[in-house]
Amino acid sequence: MKMLRTFVAVLAGLLSPFMSTAQDDSTVLRSIVEDVLVRGAAYENLRFLCKKVGPRLSGSPGGAAAVRETARMMRESGADTVYLQECMVPKWVRQKGDTANLIMANGQVQPLRITALGNSEGTSAKGLKATVIEVRDFDELERMKDMVRGKIVFYNYPMNPRYIRTNSAYGDAGRYRTTGASRAAKYGAVAVIVRSLASNPDDYPHTGVMSYDEAYPKIPAVAISTNHADLLSGALKKRMISEVFIKTICGMQGEVLSHNVVGELRGTEFPNEVITVGGHLDSWDLAEGAHDDGAGCVQSMEVIRVFKQLGIRPKRTIRAVMFQNEENGTAGGKKYAELAAKDGKQYIFAMESDAGGFSPRGFGVSNRDSAKAFKVRQWAPMFMPFGVYEFTNGGGGADINPLAGLGTTLVGLTPDSQRYFDIHHSALDVFEAVSRRELHLGAGVMAGLIYLVDKYGN
Amino acid sequence: MKMLRTFVAVLAGLLSPFMSTAQDDSTVLRSIVEDVLVRGAAYENLRFLCKKVGPRLSGSPGGAAAVRETARMMRESGADTVYLQECMVPKWVRQKGDTANLIMANGQVQPLRITALGNSEGTSAKGLKATVIEVRDFDELERMKDMVRGKIVFYNYPMNPRYIRTNSAYGDAGRYRTTGASRAAKYGAVAVIVRSLASNPDDYPHTGVMSYDEAYPKIPAVAISTNHADLLSGALKKRMISEVFIKTICGMQGEVLSHNVVGELRGTEFPNEVITVGGHLDSWDLAEGAHDDGAGCVQSMEVIRVFKQLGIRPKRTIRAVMFQNEENGTAGGKKYAELAAKDGKQYIFAMESDAGGFSPRGFGVSNRDSAKAFKVRQWAPMFMPFGVYEFTNGGGGADINPLAGLGTTLVGLTPDSQRYFDIHHSALDVFEAVSRRELHLGAGVMAGLIYLVDKYGN
Repeated sequence: MKMLRTFVAVLAGLLSPFMSTAQDDSTVLRSIVEDVLVRGAAYENLRFLCKKVGPRLSGSPGGAAAVRETARMMRESGADTVYLQECMVPKWVRQKGDTANLIMANGQVQPLRITALGNSEGTSAKGLKATVIEVRDFDELERMKDMVRGKIVFYNYPMNPRYIRTNSAYGDAGRYRTTGASRAAKYGAVAVIVRSLASNPDDYPHTGVMSYDEAYPKIPAVAISTNHADLLSGALKKRMISEVFIKTICGMQGEVLSHNVVGELRGTEFPNEVITVGGHLDSWDLAEGAHDDGAGCVQSMEVIRVFKQLGIRPKRTIRAVMFQNEENGTAGGKKYAELAAKDGKQYIFAMESDAGGFSPRGFGVSNRDSAKAFKVRQWAPMFMPFGVYEFTNGGGGADINPLAGLGTTLVGLTPDSQRYFDIHHSALDVFEAVSRRELHLGAGVMAGLIYLVDKYGN
Repeated sequence: MKMLRTFVAVLAGLLSPFMSTAQDDSTVLRSIVEDVLVRGAAYENLRFLCKKVGPRLSGSPGGAAAVRETARMMRESGADTVYLQECMVPKWVRQKGDTANLIMANGQVQPLRITALGNSEGTSAKGLKATVIEVRDFDELERMKDMVRGKIVFYNYPMNPRYIRTNSAYGDAGRYRTTGASRAAKYGAVAVIVRSLASNPDDYPHTGVMSYDEAYPKIPAVAISTNHADLLSGALKKRMISEVFIKTICGMQGEVLSHNVVGELRGTEFPNEVITVGGHLDSWDLAEGAHDDGAGCVQSMEVIRVFKQLGIRPKRTIRAVMFQNEENGTAGGKKYAELAAKDGKQYIFAMESDAGGFSPRGFGVSNRDSAKAFKVRQWAPMFMPFGVYEFTNGGGGADINPLAGLGTTLVGLTPDSQRYFDIHHSALDVFEAVSRRELHLGAGVMAGLIYLVDKYGN
């Protein structure tokens, strides 16, 4: 026992310069997180974004209002410079509510809960009626390709509940939403119905982006709620269905000007080294985009607020960025990287929060130079007091990933993922689904990691 | 590099018997968790408990219905033996809705959102009217003790948002709810109003148990919503208030017979070694007791279901226990330990889930024999794939803690705590606040840990 104590004492002596620095850092980290928990503005900013601005698809009036209002919030957060970056965004418009009906063999009609997928073309004003063929996956589509012509293809591929991180299940099942229309159109299908990407049975259709392969006709594409996917599937198996009717009046209306919103704290020593922290400002049109990604936006502005509040003057330039058009084009992220490539500054680090405003569990870290990613991951123990354990290899975000080519270290906040796909892209993504403490704890650890990056560089 | 590889190879060789066992265990753990995620019954059982049974304070008709219904669920879960354990519980009754009004100096009347605290005595049928004196804490009460006589004492002590684990803030602020009435009655107060134990500003009063010191008059005690606590405090500071009126018709009506519900899977090799897993069946009367503690009940029954489903025949006896009367007396937990002390069996391990059905983050482990607690904590790495990292020293639950004297290892599930006190003991604790995946992931890792304890003993 004595020997062990001696050994520990010697070890502590050797480590003491590091230890005291780490202790100082831990003290600052705690003061940052506590300030956000006590007087963070993120939650009230989110309330405004959800309740006063509301849905804000890029190119829509709500999208423009969100630019104005977050520019104001940036100034109120204490940014010393606030400006806009112009970018052209696709303007996709859902002109009316989407409708669908199940027409039973006995003539009865049952409404189906559906929503047009983002970027999809609508039906004609009269709608579209056809028989339905259900496939589990693309393999089954290929086997049944000769039976598809003139029909509606129904992809009934569920999110796999076995994945512990729901994002993995989303990636797996997401193929049917993004590419299913053209793969069915190739064989003559007239429309597709895709089972919603929802973790659990519910009554809400979950929208999201799709895209067309220009080689095939652009057929309408809709998502159906998971409960109604089960209803439709059951009726098909019992041969109770005659046809399905779909009406979606939507489509692309060219491109329009929109903006990223940028707020800066200028660095005192290395102003040309830029640390970016952001979320995306646009949201789907069915709800308030509270978790996706109002949360990431207000958390990023909170980083500015807490630095200012605590009088932390960064050595490097810290930028909070509200990226435009992540949902259906990522024009804002691409524009940001395009400008970054030619302004002569060094984009050393970028963090994105775009997985919901839930309790933070960790960070994913990427850099083509693995030593730089490792440097970030070695700070992990300092975040354990906040319940943040998972510093994983690999991470980023749709908006910051275009910076990878500049050697930027890319970091994604990893919140708890269990609830995210209950509400994602559906009418359920509203302010009330966000917990103040979860949102603020996430913002606090984001600010803490930015503090370390600013202090030690990349 | 070569040397390092050799070293790693040698190390792997030395560890391989352990590694292969650990690998087998990990495979079983994964199959357990996946089965619960895919076909777990916990969520639907919880829906029934919340929506068909509803509030179930011990001694109430709902309390009796919950005993019957969970006994049925136990049988459906596959328990080979289901039985009740009799225990006497206090019968506390809230006879009418609680009301309070702020009577302003200008004569205006403003309703206040309050609720009688559990086990408190009510006012007379006419109610009670008095001036209010606000104190921050007991120190301030002591300083102002000469001014208290004939008044209502208002404890306005908030939960401290700086604690990362909200349970710590609850423990800190909880003193005012549990002991505040008698401490004020000592100085002649006629009633107390306690700021609700809620993490965030909201409009809901949060009830919970209090108790009287027999040395002083039993004065009425109510909780006030956090928003109305702020309103009351602001009006007091501006000297805008004349008096506050309170009416609560409630009180103790002696003791009545109630029950713990026990379901067993009898051990094949060591049937007299008992592994207990439980939650408490009773809930407060203001809502459905979904997180507190319907979640813990249905998770505990899920352990039985998944063992049965996967054909895992335990060596030791596994008991799921629905404890009675945790909220206002813990009669069920005490009775369970009393019976355990004299039935000749060994109560090697007990786990409780009573901190909400949120994403599991870890387990707290206690045993007076620290080696036994350490044995459980060393399994921590096997739970990392499920996002369960925090195996802490110290843990248990109000219902299982009486077993400590028998040498039982006590384990409490540690779910994410950020949302818990948003809803705890208020009208917000309803089924809709529970996420199916979070609830099932918690049940899955509970069953996984029980599997290891059963396999390796204590």
